[in-house]
Amino acid sequence: MKKHSLLTVVKIGGEVVENIEVLNRFLKDFSAVGNPKILVHGGGKKATQVAQQFGIPTIMREGRRITSADMLDVSVMVYAGLFNKTIVGLLQKHKTNAIGLCGADAGCILAQKRSTKPIDYGFVGDVKHIHKEQVSTFLSNNLTPVFCAITCDSNGQLLNTNADTIATDIAVAMNSDYKVQLIYCLDKSGVLKNTEDDASVITRLSREDFEKMKGKGLIYAGMLPKLENAFRALSYGIDEVVISNTDFLRNQRQRHTRLTLK
Amino acid sequence: MKKHSLLTVVKIGGEVVENIEVLNRFLKDFSAVGNPKILVHGGGKKATQVAQQFGIPTIMREGRRITSADMLDVSVMVYAGLFNKTIVGLLQKHKTNAIGLCGADAGCILAQKRSTKPIDYGFVGDVKHIHKEQVSTFLSNNLTPVFCAITCDSNGQLLNTNADTIATDIAVAMNSDYKVQLIYCLDKSGVLKNTEDDASVITRLSREDFEKMKGKGLIYAGMLPKLENAFRALSYGIDEVVISNTDFLRNQRQRHTRLTLK
Repeated sequence: MKKHSLLTVVKIGGEVVENIEVLNRFLKDFSAVGNPKILVHGGGKKATQVAQQFGIPTIMREGRRITSADMLDVSVMVYAGLFNKTIVGLLQKHKTNAIGLCGADAGCILAQKRSTKPIDYGFVGDVKHIHKEQVSTFLSNNLTPVFCAITCDSNGQLLNTNADTIATDIAVAMNSDYKVQLIYCLDKSGVLKNTEDDASVITRLSREDFEKMKGKGLIYAGMLPKLENAFRALSYGIDEVVISNTDFLRNQRQRHTRLTLK
Repeated sequence: MKKHSLLTVVKIGGEVVENIEVLNRFLKDFSAVGNPKILVHGGGKKATQVAQQFGIPTIMREGRRITSADMLDVSVMVYAGLFNKTIVGLLQKHKTNAIGLCGADAGCILAQKRSTKPIDYGFVGDVKHIHKEQVSTFLSNNLTPVFCAITCDSNGQLLNTNADTIATDIAVAMNSDYKVQLIYCLDKSGVLKNTEDDASVITRLSREDFEKMKGKGLIYAGMLPKLENAFRALSYGIDEVVISNTDFLRNQRQRHTRLTLK
């Protein structure tokens, strides 16, 4: 494997998948990105809506959602079924030979159920191992893996897993064989100085600056774990980590945030 | 590719997938079958139940269900999501390196939306082409494809497709490179002389005998298209076509029906 061959790993959120026009436009742009490439997609609100229609209660503990057995079924239906296959179908239309995968498929991602202490999150898993040789085989066969945020433990138990973490862990695993560019697409153009002003994008954000902003409370709730994840990728030697919106693929000169270690 | 290498293609119905104990026992037996092998699974009642919970009406025309856009979403959720990934997870547990696929994934199955004349079935597709080279690549990589009954047309439109037809078409496509054994697992031990008596299994059923029984009304509704499909496989040169229940894999000497052309 040539370390100098570029691999693009893109993470999109559920809000992109839920808007079919935005999704289709994004997937057209994604198709124009040269191979090899990998797409990771998150969940969004649809699973919660479906759960409500089923009368499955949303159980929260310390501000975080618990995945009951019923909620897991819904997550698998929506993420690994509806979202994943809609994306794969559209990518095929745009001439990208996509293959939709959850962690169980071809044993790509082995996960471990999260410890029930101090909080029992239910059927939630953390990534234990990425089977990078298998992912490389797909890429060598000119396939574009599309990962949803469902994984599997060694007992065959499916688990809900954070999509940002999956994107980071895949990027880190593939980094030994490829020069990896990791792009997190959000609904904002990047990390903002002023969350109300989309034009206030921070062009370069160092770990140190991030820690300072965090200290001042300038990085708000949902963004915190996202940036922690993104800096983790950088600390493991990923060449390029970018935070932007779904338009970034079409025009890489548009405003975006590039993370730097120093 | 050596034509003398055996490929086992097994079709199971939704009723197997819906009973987790039966499913797990079957998948353990399926795992014991030597590679290469392919599993195709049907739908069952779950999609209808889910649709009911969503308040999606079941539309029937001339005795057959119409797949509306909402019903298609539910089918994709249940078949390509919940069922497919549950099966893949359990197969991984039983040390079979399974990969769950719908027709869109890796472009394995290209389908065509069924003509709206004389009856508009909605989002239903018929198989146009099996990408047998891609399926062979998976098999050569020691992966076990698990196909659900969702396909995709050249516009990226997902479509509901009959699982028996998918199993037959895959078996026929792979037949040029492998010696194919095609096994349809039903809830009965085979084709019965007397539908009330599970012991009345017809050991060998020729096309001629089938036509005679059909003429006498001895083959009932759901079995008719199943057997038409099975004989179609035989007519395309599949070496062995068996109809039995899910216990057949464990004990191939148990009662079963073997189809013969003459």
